[in-house]
Amino acid sequence: MNLPTSETLILELIDHALHITINRPKVRNAMSLQMVHELMSVFESIKDNRTIRAVVIRGADGHFCAGGDIKDMSNARAAVSKADESSDPFFTLNREFGRMINQVNHAPQVVIAVLEGAVLGGGFGLACVSDVAIAAESAKFGLPETGLGIIPAQIAPFVVTRIGLTQARRLALLGARFGGVEAERLGIVHYVCSSEESINQQLEEVLSQVKRCAPEANAITKELILSVGNNELESVLDNAAQSFSECVKGNEGQEGMMAFMQKRQPNWA
Amino acid sequence: MNLPTSETLILELIDHALHITINRPKVRNAMSLQMVHELMSVFESIKDNRTIRAVVIRGADGHFCAGGDIKDMSNARAAVSKADESSDPFFTLNREFGRMINQVNHAPQVVIAVLEGAVLGGGFGLACVSDVAIAAESAKFGLPETGLGIIPAQIAPFVVTRIGLTQARRLALLGARFGGVEAERLGIVHYVCSSEESINQQLEEVLSQVKRCAPEANAITKELILSVGNNELESVLDNAAQSFSECVKGNEGQEGMMAFMQKRQPNWA
Amino acid sequence: MNLPTSETLILELIDHALHITINRPKVRNAMSLQMVHELMSVFESIKDNRTIRAVVIRGADGHFCAGGDIKDMSNARAAVSKADESSDPFFTLNREFGRMINQVNHAPQVVIAVLEGAVLGGGFGLACVSDVAIAAESAKFGLPETGLGIIPAQIAPFVVTRIGLTQARRLALLGARFGGVEAERLGIVHYVCSSEESINQQLEEVLSQVKRCAPEANAITKELILSVGNNELESVLDNAAQSFSECVKGNEGQEGMMAFMQKRQPNWA
Repeated sequence: MNLPTSETLILELIDHALHITINRPKVRNAMSLQMVHELMSVFESIKDNRTIRAVVIRGADGHFCAGGDIKDMSNARAAVSKADESSDPFFTLNREFGRMINQVNHAPQVVIAVLEGAVLGGGFGLACVSDVAIAAESAKFGLPETGLGIIPAQIAPFVVTRIGLTQARRLALLGARFGGVEAERLGIVHYVCSSEESINQQLEEVLSQVKRCAPEANAITKELILSVGNNELESVLDNAAQSFSECVKGNEGQEGMMAFMQKRQPNWA
Repeated sequence: MNLPTSETLILELIDHALHITINRPKVRNAMSLQMVHELMSVFESIKDNRTIRAVVIRGADGHFCAGGDIKDMSNARAAVSKADESSDPFFTLNREFGRMINQVNHAPQVVIAVLEGAVLGGGFGLACVSDVAIAAESAKFGLPETGLGIIPAQIAPFVVTRIGLTQARRLALLGARFGGVEAERLGIVHYVCSSEESINQQLEEVLSQVKRCAPEANAITKELILSVGNNELESVLDNAAQSFSECVKGNEGQEGMMAFMQKRQPNWA
Repeated sequence: MNLPTSETLILELIDHALHITINRPKVRNAMSLQMVHELMSVFESIKDNRTIRAVVIRGADGHFCAGGDIKDMSNARAAVSKADESSDPFFTLNREFGRMINQVNHAPQVVIAVLEGAVLGGGFGLACVSDVAIAAESAKFGLPETGLGIIPAQIAPFVVTRIGLTQARRLALLGARFGGVEAERLGIVHYVCSSEESINQQLEEVLSQVKRCAPEANAITKELILSVGNNELESVLDNAAQSFSECVKGNEGQEGMMAFMQKRQPNWA
């Protein structure tokens, strides 16, 4: 399998999982436009690959991601003066980040975020589209935007979807900062761990659970779950019944039923 | 009152509540197509009856419901080979279950689920449309579908609505299994009890709370609550104000106000 | 700044916050139609004022608000007999309350509710549109409507949005009563305090957090957050990127960036 080359990310295939390490440790893995595009390329390249069943996103050197990149902001500011009326460098910079977040949200693989150190702004947004989030107790979450005179534009919608309106409005309007335990209480993350060792154990456990689930069935289920609320319930259920029938008659459904009857593990496990 | 006859359910009217016992204990109360249709008949038969103010659903012999019935699946598989192109037995089998779930969700009575033993797959889905859910600590919840190569097709949408996207995606994509305490933490159930005695006490308490609420007002309120998010807020509020006016001027509103003034219980309590 | 005169509310401007005291202590601050209109006037009068950055709503004499006003109900009943077919005094009374709730929900300021004593019916509804809610442990929350033969018409939709369908249906259909600790567990309030002193400390802390956030950025962020779910995600994100660009280029964005570079507080803090 050919993964795209990347300057800001380290990519490693281990067993059934692609491990992505965000690798700009000097700036606490701040999210540059280049990184946004490299993440999009990676997820695009694996989107039809069912042998990669999980994607683990983690930051190098103890930070997940400290938010947007300052240099990109300066570049955009410089570009504004030269830009003609039809383009807006700040709009583009911001909107591309939202496209990436949305693409990761809809990845057919199980996306697992390992959250240590700074999980701020854009890093917070990225965490909010994971299927499984494991946080260090010592991680530092926050939405610092309005304290800087700007807004969590592409992030806030995903925070609302992640934890609901009630907590999202408080966090965003107070520029709140908080740790891993609070992140779990608020429903941002699923697991909170007190050491790197226990983070790694939890990650292994999650990866082994993913392995027991059929890859295509998982991909279809994820798409179904993400469609709830965007379409009329009746049509969601009609489509779901159609997919159900196809799954039962397909390879995974037949193998799953046979394995169940024969009291053995299915071939994907 | 004539309740429909039923082979898979035991029906008992006690005071203001209809008690439905799912009664296929040999297969841990697995949900057969027959059971789906019998549940639909029961709920249809009581839908205009305001003397039945609560419906309690419980499983016989210590299990709520272990999911879909294997025999139905085999029957559908046999029927597929004979089916012409215009019909799909798997689609029908699956979709009927979703129709039942949706009907129970919209029942004008207060639906109370008592969850013991296996609460898996379709049983999990049914639990997710109750107004009040009481679980045993020892109950076993889970979405085993993708581990079998199939998908929680008619269930996943109701799980998302029950507990939100963030936990639903994790549970479905990891084929998670968990007990009653975790079910309460995740917001699937409202009460968790450590013994059958405390389950029964909690159930009595809930039934007595239902009794204090006016039956028609409760039915209208439930419909209103279920309409939120499906319609524009302004039109939800317009309809709600219309219903408010009708309630105030109706029998229950007048009796309620009079009882309040006279410091006595209203006639429905 | 000219605030509207008001008979049912006490208004005080302190630093960057408008403090509104609901002041009908003889009836535990029951919400009259007059109070509804006075609240609407106050929020209307400050909606373009960015020097008022927070609004604190609290009840006089230890109660937040015990629900709708009985006298208004009697007046409406009297008016019904005289009303022609084109008007319905109960509809109007109810719907106006919903308009007020909705207006408070969308106020560009950070709305902070301090919840003590009775937080019932309409008072509960008002609490549900705050950005930050601080409750006394001893506060009494409840939706008594269906116990009175009527419905929580303009309230239920905001309760669903506040805490989700799963708990909203239980609370409304059981006429539940509960205290501050449970209100926090259910996600109705953000903080629960055991004394008036700790309430006031928490309030000061929240007000100082508001002060660190840029007023216009906060107003735009709040509007963005409230738009999620009402519009297609793609168009929410497009609009957000547009707003982001305007904020960065605007006064607050430039001051925020400069303050960050110069390691000083921005001028709004």
